[in-house]
Amino acid sequence: MAEFRKNIITGKLCVIASERAKRPKMSKVEADKVNLNIAHDPNCPFCYGNENQTPLEISSYRTDNSQPNTRGWKIRVVPNKYPAFARENEFTQQIHEDFFEKTYAYGSTEIIIESPHHSMNPALFDLAQIELLISSYVDRIVDLKQDKNIKYIIPFRNNGKQAGASLAHPHSQLIAIPIIPHDLRDELVNSSAYYEENNKCVFCELIKQEQKENLRIVAETPEFIAICPFASEFSFETWILPKRHNSKFEDITNEEKTSFAKIYKQVMTKIYVGLDDIPYNYFIQSSPVQEDCADFYHWSFRVIPKFSIPAGFELGTNIAINTAIPEDCADFLKNILV
Amino acid sequence: MAEFRKNIITGKLCVIASERAKRPKMSKVEADKVNLNIAHDPNCPFCYGNENQTPLEISSYRTDNSQPNTRGWKIRVVPNKYPAFARENEFTQQIHEDFFEKTYAYGSTEIIIESPHHSMNPALFDLAQIELLISSYVDRIVDLKQDKNIKYIIPFRNNGKQAGASLAHPHSQLIAIPIIPHDLRDELVNSSAYYEENNKCVFCELIKQEQKENLRIVAETPEFIAICPFASEFSFETWILPKRHNSKFEDITNEEKTSFAKIYKQVMTKIYVGLDDIPYNYFIQSSPVQEDCADFYHWSFRVIPKFSIPAGFELGTNIAINTAIPEDCADFLKNILV
Repeated sequence: MAEFRKNIITGKLCVIASERAKRPKMSKVEADKVNLNIAHDPNCPFCYGNENQTPLEISSYRTDNSQPNTRGWKIRVVPNKYPAFARENEFTQQIHEDFFEKTYAYGSTEIIIESPHHSMNPALFDLAQIELLISSYVDRIVDLKQDKNIKYIIPFRNNGKQAGASLAHPHSQLIAIPIIPHDLRDELVNSSAYYEENNKCVFCELIKQEQKENLRIVAETPEFIAICPFASEFSFETWILPKRHNSKFEDITNEEKTSFAKIYKQVMTKIYVGLDDIPYNYFIQSSPVQEDCADFYHWSFRVIPKFSIPAGFELGTNIAINTAIPEDCADFLKNILV
Repeated sequence: MAEFRKNIITGKLCVIASERAKRPKMSKVEADKVNLNIAHDPNCPFCYGNENQTPLEISSYRTDNSQPNTRGWKIRVVPNKYPAFARENEFTQQIHEDFFEKTYAYGSTEIIIESPHHSMNPALFDLAQIELLISSYVDRIVDLKQDKNIKYIIPFRNNGKQAGASLAHPHSQLIAIPIIPHDLRDELVNSSAYYEENNKCVFCELIKQEQKENLRIVAETPEFIAICPFASEFSFETWILPKRHNSKFEDITNEEKTSFAKIYKQVMTKIYVGLDDIPYNYFIQSSPVQEDCADFYHWSFRVIPKFSIPAGFELGTNIAINTAIPEDCADFLKNILV
């Protein structure tokens, strides 16, 4: 029987409607299979030798003393050639409440090229490469938040054309903007209210509850836990949470980076193998960079496999209909051994 | 230059980032072309002769004295065979604030089979058929809202597989649920606040402003106006608004139904012809059925062509990046003569 479920952190309702999976045609997004064997594509702007096809690099991780904007890098961060946001845009502090008020999209839109290998899936990266990827996210946030006009920074990854990736070469993105998104504000309000009432972080309590119920755990290490959230909006949606209370992702310790790389690889491999290289999006949700939410907020990593597309009901209500039971999804992923 | 824009009614921000349309691959969703000449498909559960393949009909519109659940109907309303919501589910009034609280998905999930013709696009329906379709939405709302547990009813349409339609035969859907969606609540709060401050309906004022600027009008009749909203979240997003202040769609008059059929056909034809039969979703946003929002809310019809899919940034922030300038979209659609 279908049910409404509410996410205590986001405040969002979803419908878990497993009956709908019996419909004549499953709406699984059809994915192009990626050939993992193309190590180099001479026409790819993210491959070695084509460094001049991107804007000048912001930073890179190199172990061979190679020069910036030449081959030799392990990870390379460049501005998005087609930026939605740019710091060249004029900064306007406020969007006034009026009929047609607008402001320039001040911010930064960056590409993190994750590997020289043209077609490698990050589930297959070695742990050192994943740790470097995590470091690249952290380093960009630490740099960008020095700009006090930047209020929010989100690292994210679109895997596969059907999940919005316009280029095949493995890359993450990072966007920095001068506003706090409405949905994050909802999370801050909810987690702050929980803290006021209980003097505890709602994420920390959620982890305890998940461990106690033991129904939705996908993977666990001493430092991290991966779960399919009780009120998952999407089939096989998976969150990784640090067990140490920490509101800001960029405050991750070096030891935690190593540990996060392990659970990242576990979860991404389970999704890659178990869900047959499905397109997905992931993002890191963290505290606004200029606000002190240390007591009540808690960063998280959220993966959303692309099983369906929002249709009329979802667009009209912003209530997701999820046709997979989160407990079943967690059980399935847990049992994919990696 | 990209810009943030804010919708005064929804309160949502979007980014109008026309630079991004220059990216190597446009993300227009690839659509299957529909062959309009298949009037009848013997394997389609929505075609004449297969009335026993759906659950028993809720209502139908017939002019030939034919019997329920037999051929002869012009429009036929049936329960969804794979319901996300059902009134057989137990009604639980409240979802308690707790970690894992849930309630059964009480409600109704209905299919409105719009025509006996298997492959007709509603842009090509004659006006009488469109008027009947509008009447079918109204009649279902009037009936369902007698159930005082039903708080919100949304008629919507998914056109094309890429917009979530699982069957090709032209059909709308209607979902009735016992809660007010969070996003509609935001609209009610915003429009109510505007009314408190200005003693005017924000939608009525928006119509005046749009007429004054005359930059985003797609079509206009004495009773209705169609615009691409200033802060469109999606490319070619189009809203039809009644000029007469009316918070509840189901209170549309018979004269307005005739007039709405005309602008519906105009707008849907412009999208069908101008955007090359693109997949789309539409829905009708109206006041919650058990609340009195008569002073400040105003119903609307909203069409969202499926040009793109939400990716990591949109999922993480709920801020849409729209790569088409609404003023350009309106100009384009206005100039598609029908």
